[in-house]
Amino acid sequence: MKALEDRILREGRVLGEDILQVGGFINQQIDTSFTVEMAKEVFSLFSDVSVTKVLTIEASGIAFGFAVASQFGVPLVFAKKNRSSNVDGAVLFAPIHSYTHGNDYKATVSAEFISPDDNVLIADDFLANGEALRGLIKIVKDAGASVAGAAIEIEKGFQGGGDRLRSEGIRVESLAIIESMSESGITFRR
Amino acid sequence: MKALEDRILREGRVLGEDILQVGGFINQQIDTSFTVEMAKEVFSLFSDVSVTKVLTIEASGIAFGFAVASQFGVPLVFAKKNRSSNVDGAVLFAPIHSYTHGNDYKATVSAEFISPDDNVLIADDFLANGEALRGLIKIVKDAGASVAGAAIEIEKGFQGGGDRLRSEGIRVESLAIIESMSESGITFRR
Repeated sequence: MKALEDRILREGRVLGEDILQVGGFINQQIDTSFTVEMAKEVFSLFSDVSVTKVLTIEASGIAFGFAVASQFGVPLVFAKKNRSSNVDGAVLFAPIHSYTHGNDYKATVSAEFISPDDNVLIADDFLANGEALRGLIKIVKDAGASVAGAAIEIEKGFQGGGDRLRSEGIRVESLAIIESMSESGITFRR
Repeated sequence: MKALEDRILREGRVLGEDILQVGGFINQQIDTSFTVEMAKEVFSLFSDVSVTKVLTIEASGIAFGFAVASQFGVPLVFAKKNRSSNVDGAVLFAPIHSYTHGNDYKATVSAEFISPDDNVLIADDFLANGEALRGLIKIVKDAGASVAGAAIEIEKGFQGGGDRLRSEGIRVESLAIIESMSESGITFRR
């Protein structure tokens, strides 16, 4: 999505080898109308699919997930990182390793919110090594539901997670795929 | 908002004395179109005010905050709980005690996202003791900006946080205010 690539070039800041800061419009301050534009693009990419739910993971995936789910007219479900007192009953879960934060956590979703007849589109802001996405796929499959695919705002192509999932048959559509980045520049896969 | 009260009565589950589970449409699974209806109500309540930004806190405030910010056509900023590697530079912060989770955390926002000319509407899903809201108000004031008010989905009126803030001059508009609740029933303030 050209508008997203342009915006990343204009406002993104690369720190070190693998952190891209886009806090000005995605990560901490969210440009709501631009997010709706991105969600419309996702709706168009998956227009051949009947999506019944959108699944994301807290926290920074929620705004994008909400916008995407609104386009499809379906509920958004978000996985929590570690179980809280507000989640009880049977839970679906997946252990996830975060390379960004250097820790492990458990993604959990109440089992009542994904059922075997759901066709779930997973949405997230970033895809790097694919650990979070892999965990969300496990949760959908453990529920006996189908994975419609994954819609990602920014994929760090050079970290390989997206391509590994594609080679396993998961449909991954990323609005921008970064082929390489450094403090001197960013190139996209097209 | 009658539609919200009806929905709480129909789908909410009260656990013990102060936990209201509304995970089916607010907290973990989000009814996107209903959330947009609530955001429209907020827009109507604050139609006399010029809002430049909406501020919320991760994670469960983000969907509602996004919907509200979309109605006003302004960016959504969300405070993070504890600083992550994706937030650098000068930060605004507030220590917050969570009665729900029995812990303390620090809400942080990059200073670049709230400036003195902003008029900030704070949005959150729940208001109980008012600790989180008080922390967000501190962040807005520390930035030198104005607090337009607070828009809340569900206020637990019996915990008093909303009324304490109102008595201090903060405009707090809650779409549903629970006067009392127990496993045998819920009553609303009207």
